[in-house]
Amino acid sequence: MLEQFRVNLDEAIFAQGEDLKRTAAGVFEKMGVPAEDALLAADVLVLADLRGVDSHGVSNMLRSYVTGYQSGSINPRPDWKVVRETPSTANIDCDRGLGVILAPKGMDIAIQKAKQVGVGMVTMGNARHLGMASYHAMLALEHDMIGVCMTSCPPSVVPTFGAEPRLGTNPIAFAVPSGNEAPFVFDAATSSVAGNKIGIARRLGAKLEPGWLVDADGTPIMEEIDAPDSYTLLPLGSTRELGSHKGYGLSCMVDILGGVLTGYGYGAVPGRPNFGHYVAAYSVDAFSDAGEFKTTMDEWLQMMKSTKPAPGHDRVLVAGQAEAEVEEVRRADGIPLHPEVVQWLRDTCSELDVACLI
Amino acid sequence: MLEQFRVNLDEAIFAQGEDLKRTAAGVFEKMGVPAEDALLAADVLVLADLRGVDSHGVSNMLRSYVTGYQSGSINPRPDWKVVRETPSTANIDCDRGLGVILAPKGMDIAIQKAKQVGVGMVTMGNARHLGMASYHAMLALEHDMIGVCMTSCPPSVVPTFGAEPRLGTNPIAFAVPSGNEAPFVFDAATSSVAGNKIGIARRLGAKLEPGWLVDADGTPIMEEIDAPDSYTLLPLGSTRELGSHKGYGLSCMVDILGGVLTGYGYGAVPGRPNFGHYVAAYSVDAFSDAGEFKTTMDEWLQMMKSTKPAPGHDRVLVAGQAEAEVEEVRRADGIPLHPEVVQWLRDTCSELDVACLI
Repeated sequence: MLEQFRVNLDEAIFAQGEDLKRTAAGVFEKMGVPAEDALLAADVLVLADLRGVDSHGVSNMLRSYVTGYQSGSINPRPDWKVVRETPSTANIDCDRGLGVILAPKGMDIAIQKAKQVGVGMVTMGNARHLGMASYHAMLALEHDMIGVCMTSCPPSVVPTFGAEPRLGTNPIAFAVPSGNEAPFVFDAATSSVAGNKIGIARRLGAKLEPGWLVDADGTPIMEEIDAPDSYTLLPLGSTRELGSHKGYGLSCMVDILGGVLTGYGYGAVPGRPNFGHYVAAYSVDAFSDAGEFKTTMDEWLQMMKSTKPAPGHDRVLVAGQAEAEVEEVRRADGIPLHPEVVQWLRDTCSELDVACLI
Repeated sequence: MLEQFRVNLDEAIFAQGEDLKRTAAGVFEKMGVPAEDALLAADVLVLADLRGVDSHGVSNMLRSYVTGYQSGSINPRPDWKVVRETPSTANIDCDRGLGVILAPKGMDIAIQKAKQVGVGMVTMGNARHLGMASYHAMLALEHDMIGVCMTSCPPSVVPTFGAEPRLGTNPIAFAVPSGNEAPFVFDAATSSVAGNKIGIARRLGAKLEPGWLVDADGTPIMEEIDAPDSYTLLPLGSTRELGSHKGYGLSCMVDILGGVLTGYGYGAVPGRPNFGHYVAAYSVDAFSDAGEFKTTMDEWLQMMKSTKPAPGHDRVLVAGQAEAEVEEVRRADGIPLHPEVVQWLRDTCSELDVACLI
């Protein structure tokens, strides 16, 4: 995440992760979510806050989940079920349940299957928002498995040369176990920037970079601009010359795996008010020795981090490293929250009669 | 592929696909490759030529394979074997065999496993060049399966902020079955441009786009330049602001799945003269009804292609569409070859005593 998208630390109010989690869990419970699921949902949101993925934490997402539960669009007690299954696969009807809560359950199924036959792959249709995709992918790590998670979102991104949004920001997350090094954890939208960052930029008054949005007629905006109220994003690569057909194609793949393959529609199905998810676990031992793999991953991670930097840069980062560093700081010092977010949280807790620990 | 990277049709010599295939197969046989494998290798190269993927066809690749066989770096009769296996996975030691020939065999194993348990996933270490990744992914289509193929290549791409290459161009290919529409076939390097295109640009005297290469010190070159003799590429996204950390992260993932996971090293292992491959097949029926899936894919493909275009563009394309269109033309009119390529092919055939049909 670019620095300009972080809350200004001088005006921030700091919350301990545990306090924020218990507070958020209280809000989920008041939405009708069972206690255990409420705690899980809060854990997913707060881990995003702890890792500096502010776009997917309590501050940026809880509000929209509350709105979704209150409007009846999200089902707090979904009767989710596996509708098709093979030794290595399952497809789940999520009954309008929040992906934040159901993707970990799908990932558990994938992990159990990977233990049995090497790979587990689970599609999840008729769902709601996923939260931070890497949370679910990382569940595979402690089993010496590679975790994968993708989600097909409602349209906000144009295809290359297109003037209308046809794809969601459709993120892809991978988590890979390591030995002593922080694990490789990749989590990124296939658009050139995650949609949530536009809202954060608006709140913080930050400028948007060139290559993120299109004009009303679909032309890529290649200069710096203020964050508009409504927007349509460009795929990763921004323009055809820079490779936007690749970001567009990867986004399509996510829409197919997390959408079409579930049998519950894809991002641009008119009126589809849902998200489709895809989670997978690959057992390392099904390919090669897990111990040797983790040793090689450490060597690989060190190699990548020790790359000589280009002028103007102190160091080369590898996916998951910045997040692990922020997590260490925020677990000690707390999570910096924007005063407006804290005010909303306090008001909401007071309204819902939830103990606010913030 | 951008138009400036196509051979000028006025000076091109046209070859029928079947003639080019038989000629190339003859060259492979003279390298010591068994007849059946030689025909397979020629089929992979010529399909690239037919689909307009000139960077991976006879014209751009056969020469380097001949050099590899002649120097002893590629083994024409590899004793390849499965070294680890589960119901859904296998890992293969390729014994320095050409990926062009062995990846279809790996894909066959993946397809058989997907028939049994839903998903098949095969890693292939100690291999040589893959050829066009989508060839292997497309083998899944006739089985109503989604095909995936990736390859970990020797380093030519910098990490974001890096001044040294640490990753290969590490392509990702996906092929998805459809009904009446041409299948979705995505195949792209995770660098902002495929390395082979630089060589083609040099041969054709075409300019390179901004955002493709770095300067000697690792700074992204953001203006148009002539194709240099040696070069280091940028990851997809080109700069941090445009999202190059995403292209970099995806490239890492390919290096892990096609490299580290095989147990035979990764792209940047000093002196590793090899490539590692990853192929997978997902049975559509393991998730939802294959017939319904293909109907929905047709609808999805039509939706994407009918997107209103932005000013200056006639239409929106979907991955695999341009290639299918070129294939139709080239199957009828022949494959346009650069005169220099034809001269090399004729000289080589004469030297090796191969019947040249071009």
